[in-house]
Amino acid sequence: MASAANACSPSFSAANSSVSKPKALSDFYLRFRNINALSLRSKRVGLPVLSFSRIRSPRISASSPQVMDQSVGEASSKAPTIVEVDLGNRSYPIYIGSGLLDQPELLQRHVHGKRVLVVTNNTVAPLYLDKVVDALTRGNPNVSVDSVILPDGEKYKNMETLMKVFDKAIESRLDRRCTFVALGGGVIGDMCGFAAAAFLRGVNFIQIPTTVMAQVDSSVGGKTGINHPLGKNLIGAFYQPQCVLIDTDTLNTLPDRELASGLAEVIKYGLIRDAGFFEWQEKNMPKLMARDPSAMAYAIKRSCENKAEVVSLDEKESGLRATLNLGHGCRHVIPPWLD
Amino acid sequence: MASAANACSPSFSAANSSVSKPKALSDFYLRFRNINALSLRSKRVGLPVLSFSRIRSPRISASSPQVMDQSVGEASSKAPTIVEVDLGNRSYPIYIGSGLLDQPELLQRHVHGKRVLVVTNNTVAPLYLDKVVDALTRGNPNVSVDSVILPDGEKYKNMETLMKVFDKAIESRLDRRCTFVALGGGVIGDMCGFAAAAFLRGVNFIQIPTTVMAQVDSSVGGKTGINHPLGKNLIGAFYQPQCVLIDTDTLNTLPDRELASGLAEVIKYGLIRDAGFFEWQEKNMPKLMARDPSAMAYAIKRSCENKAEVVSLDEKESGLRATLNLGHGCRHVIPPWLD
Repeated sequence: MASAANACSPSFSAANSSVSKPKALSDFYLRFRNINALSLRSKRVGLPVLSFSRIRSPRISASSPQVMDQSVGEASSKAPTIVEVDLGNRSYPIYIGSGLLDQPELLQRHVHGKRVLVVTNNTVAPLYLDKVVDALTRGNPNVSVDSVILPDGEKYKNMETLMKVFDKAIESRLDRRCTFVALGGGVIGDMCGFAAAAFLRGVNFIQIPTTVMAQVDSSVGGKTGINHPLGKNLIGAFYQPQCVLIDTDTLNTLPDRELASGLAEVIKYGLIRDAGFFEWQEKNMPKLMARDPSAMAYAIKRSCENKAEVVSLDEKESGLRATLNLGHGCRHVIPPWLD
Repeated sequence: MASAANACSPSFSAANSSVSKPKALSDFYLRFRNINALSLRSKRVGLPVLSFSRIRSPRISASSPQVMDQSVGEASSKAPTIVEVDLGNRSYPIYIGSGLLDQPELLQRHVHGKRVLVVTNNTVAPLYLDKVVDALTRGNPNVSVDSVILPDGEKYKNMETLMKVFDKAIESRLDRRCTFVALGGGVIGDMCGFAAAAFLRGVNFIQIPTTVMAQVDSSVGGKTGINHPLGKNLIGAFYQPQCVLIDTDTLNTLPDRELASGLAEVIKYGLIRDAGFFEWQEKNMPKLMARDPSAMAYAIKRSCENKAEVVSLDEKESGLRATLNLGHGCRHVIPPWLD
């Protein structure tokens, strides 16, 4: 654990009692030794150091009651859990569950107009593009779907690649009533979202995130954008989707290192603002590591709720929301022992 | 007047009584024979064909009472007329008058933070950049101003040129508290506005339009954007400025053809929704052609009020606002006799 002291490692170790800064998280140590031995421990029962109260906004609601105990939760394999992100006239639902891409009505109710552009990458397209096109068009022959397949990777999150989305949309003669669908991880979500924000000054947008990181982070808050050669996410927009559809089955094809990166983000929500969730994680980490659909759905739901609460209070990140950036400088740093 | 039948000529000639479409503007003919002989005539006194009532929204207010008679209006050479564009928390004032760039407090009250980026072009920069930098910094040594000078012309309204604005902003290490200032015509306003909308997902933005067209069209409504090789204004954002400062003195350096193009836009507001204003134009066209500051200020004010009323009712152009697009396909077509 030589890297435990590295600020960009997903390992924390601290001894004092302050919880105001991540480097001073007392009584906790959290280790990513390897993907099969992720441990999350509290030396004290009841997580007393997470004494700051969880902010519960009445504007965030899930379709089923919160489960604060140690059970996996309420997510079933078919009926989606719904987290409502309340942002006035920009509100939208997040559907979470197993097999949701086999329920076309979930997507179709949010498609405006008759034209759809699916934006994905060359890793995800072979796995899920046909399934998504089917979900968009089954029993709905009036809708036509175009797609643009971008190269996979953070290094392509730039203006040159973004222009390929505009090129495709314009060549396809899409109008303001079209819908852009982001199918992929955070890079695809950020690029497709910004393209949707800027194409004809704004068209409808749906997210289908296929990584845990995108599901618990990018799917809430409307941050979209691209990188500039001198910095990440310097060009973009705050732009909210019509809905987010999280089919936990897509996680079955997620590489281990991507799973670990996403679970670190899940753990963060427990660490910084939700003691009950942190305790639940402690008990259920083996199920999360095994990609148990119900456990994953519950962890994603609670993460989304936490983020949605913050975002609904501070949509444009003028203060409180910035606390969620903890660890974001680290998200692309994977310990070498996971390679 | 062989070109009078050309839909893209700024000449109209019609005989029937419908006013619902430009090609059927009865009783009017409007001629741009040359820049020194612009005429605007009604065969009937009192403009009865413009019988649809002018929509007066209580949300639009000027700092001085409306002048519906034949006089030039209330604009003085120093005290600005103010048109308030009311868009809830995106409301902003438009200052109109002569010598406003010599009143630093007008600009400075809208500068947020200590860093400003002036975006202009190589035609306007030699004329007004120093004056604007002085207006931003006089008596205000805490503010530092950077500038980026783009090539002049519609053909440069593209992603490649836009990236030069981002490059400069990022190289200058501007943060979210900076202010972008657009100094120039419609192309500069559109590009700078979109850059402000997208840089760090949105920074403050001030417009100093220096053409009549930009002053009466681009300064109201928040339409920003760039062209794509396959079409105009296909990529952009609705983004409102902190304020618009219209110094009518900048029109003294405006080429005749640009003046004519802008006055055609002014006439449009009279034609499509403001009979009283149209009548005023008829009486005061010689003053407008002579660039009389008070006449120009009044014409600009009434045009902005008309557009602001429409925009406040339909900010995102879902219906009513689209009526303002009349003639926009023509704005860059100048009759050869003006060359």
